[in-house]
Amino acid sequence: MADQTIYRASTTAPVNIAVIKYWGKRDAKLNLPTNSSLSVTLSQADLCTTTTASCSASYTTADSLLLNSAPQTLETPRTQACLKALRSQRAALEEANSNLPKLSTFPLRIVSVNNFPTAAGLASSAAGFAALIRAIANLYELPANPSDLSIIARQGSGSACRSLFGGYVAWQAGEKADGSDSLAVEVAPASHWPEMRAVILVASALKKDVGSTEGMQLTVKTSTLFPLRANTIVPQRMEEMKKAIASKNFEDFARITMQDSNGFHATCLDTYPPTFYMNDTSRAAVRAVEAINRAAGKDVAAYTFDAGPNAVIYYLAENEGLVAGLFKSFLSHIDGWQVRRGQAIQASSATPLDESIASTLKEGISRVILTGVGEGPQKIDHHLVSETGEAITS
Amino acid sequence: MADQTIYRASTTAPVNIAVIKYWGKRDAKLNLPTNSSLSVTLSQADLCTTTTASCSASYTTADSLLLNSAPQTLETPRTQACLKALRSQRAALEEANSNLPKLSTFPLRIVSVNNFPTAAGLASSAAGFAALIRAIANLYELPANPSDLSIIARQGSGSACRSLFGGYVAWQAGEKADGSDSLAVEVAPASHWPEMRAVILVASALKKDVGSTEGMQLTVKTSTLFPLRANTIVPQRMEEMKKAIASKNFEDFARITMQDSNGFHATCLDTYPPTFYMNDTSRAAVRAVEAINRAAGKDVAAYTFDAGPNAVIYYLAENEGLVAGLFKSFLSHIDGWQVRRGQAIQASSATPLDESIASTLKEGISRVILTGVGEGPQKIDHHLVSETGEAITS
Repeated sequence: MADQTIYRASTTAPVNIAVIKYWGKRDAKLNLPTNSSLSVTLSQADLCTTTTASCSASYTTADSLLLNSAPQTLETPRTQACLKALRSQRAALEEANSNLPKLSTFPLRIVSVNNFPTAAGLASSAAGFAALIRAIANLYELPANPSDLSIIARQGSGSACRSLFGGYVAWQAGEKADGSDSLAVEVAPASHWPEMRAVILVASALKKDVGSTEGMQLTVKTSTLFPLRANTIVPQRMEEMKKAIASKNFEDFARITMQDSNGFHATCLDTYPPTFYMNDTSRAAVRAVEAINRAAGKDVAAYTFDAGPNAVIYYLAENEGLVAGLFKSFLSHIDGWQVRRGQAIQASSATPLDESIASTLKEGISRVILTGVGEGPQKIDHHLVSETGEAITS
Repeated sequence: MADQTIYRASTTAPVNIAVIKYWGKRDAKLNLPTNSSLSVTLSQADLCTTTTASCSASYTTADSLLLNSAPQTLETPRTQACLKALRSQRAALEEANSNLPKLSTFPLRIVSVNNFPTAAGLASSAAGFAALIRAIANLYELPANPSDLSIIARQGSGSACRSLFGGYVAWQAGEKADGSDSLAVEVAPASHWPEMRAVILVASALKKDVGSTEGMQLTVKTSTLFPLRANTIVPQRMEEMKKAIASKNFEDFARITMQDSNGFHATCLDTYPPTFYMNDTSRAAVRAVEAINRAAGKDVAAYTFDAGPNAVIYYLAENEGLVAGLFKSFLSHIDGWQVRRGQAIQASSATPLDESIASTLKEGISRVILTGVGEGPQKIDHHLVSETGEAITS
């Protein structure tokens, strides 16, 4: 009689928001980037994907994935590349040790939930793929370390490779054609600079201009300014940013973060036809951050924008009142000001702000998320698949 | 008894809108640009400055300028540089021929009117300085040709040098430190390609982000992408654009125009702190032009944006219905659709347009201006200063 055991492993995984942006692939199939990137992993208390991977010889259906109770396809080339790589590593273990159950041959049943709205444009695919890869690696008891797994996760969603670590994480572009040196490494753990905070201003949902996969390849193909960014500017910024993090120099961190976000969006605008991810709301957020920094007499806040209008604003805990407090002074009516730890944020109007900036943000921002630097994926015992193999979705 | 004659000369001068943008000075005092630029001179039936320069030994007041009935200062370093250069050329003539009246020693009285709203962000300083320089050169009977005068006009306002010619005009950046080779030349007269039309979508007046003089120097100083644009990209585009104009290839003209506008605004966004001239209204105009071109199956319209949110959209007369007609289909309620020549434009909704694009434009555009390629400054006999030296302001 065949093994009827339901094998299970679960993990959480975080969202990360880059301060040096990934934009452009040198190999679209392997998701190899044109340039290195660097991100801050955000606290899973605020933004987190939880995933249980299970497998069993008793499963009679094909591999399946349930995300927030809705079935998702696993039949994409990217996801298949990830599953194939993980199964192949498991099969090697099984070959070396015939006592191991043949998990690599069993159908997978994967259940995943996000603790945040998927549609908000919050890099949910990074957390999702990181959790998927980490959960299956746990299930298969692979000896792979996070950098090893980042090579697999990268093939699912580029920025997912950075979500396998906590703290401050670099994705090294690498040079090899097979992508074996295009992986994530820890620049510094969260404990090195735990004071890093972020407030995310979520812009009212509008149709996204152009998806990032399509958008970045159009930039590579048509932007005349992009090669300078990818080949020269970003490599310099990577080194400067690592130094800023090593020395916990927030002013350097802030300046490089803002310059890199602007430079990335500049190459989107230089794309033909041009891609616009920032809108008038985003620009008002830029002006608000500039007003905060002007009033403080130094850079205490740093904006960054991914491929969408949401503003992510980094600051240090000591400046929470100056930064998050200013936004609360005119956005207190929207959702998200509850804090999960620490003190509630005091609205502060210490910074003089042009009324048109405040009114543009009031109109364009639908919620805020308060968060900060956090840890990488955590193995958990609370499974989303029952002992008998059913999805636990509530 | 001294000569009591009131000497007078009058001229008109046009606005020009660049299709390869001037942005960045290599010498701020002499207004020497980092890169060459190329523009289309617009018809003076639609946009025009008229200026009378007068001088007389009988004038007892200092040099003066009245613009649209309001006194303006001439005491700026730039204007003074222009007046000094013109007086010096006149003085040389007087020295060579002692029969000439000593106009170079007389106070100037200058009266100027625009036939369009000065504040609309419509390159009024280009037309204004071109008219000022041309009128005084006429008054002084200087033998200078338009290229010679463009060297003087450039010192008043960079883009003014291109308004001394009609048609298609290049401003050669030049290489010399004294600026003697930084001048405007005719690429092609208006008669070479008279079918060129433009519709200008004037965005509702809002405070300008950063003035262009300040903005361009910040770009030169801080943008990491700017050197590539100035040194490599623009020189290539200048050659391609000259070919497109020589061969009257509208599709190439359109593509290069749009790419150069986007590339210029990209370097503004890459400036630190970033400068934003385009807003959500501008972006809707970009999307509308893309929709027109998609529906036409080729580029029949080309957008370009100066240092402000107004869209200037070039097209050929044969496509007036497709281009201007589309905008009229949802902007017919605003001012500017009266045509001074030819047929009234038929509103046309042949192009399918996203409702959100139309509604953004409806909200953000306050007037349109219909125009087309036109001639350079014209000497006129209708003076704005009377025979007795009084300003004629109505």
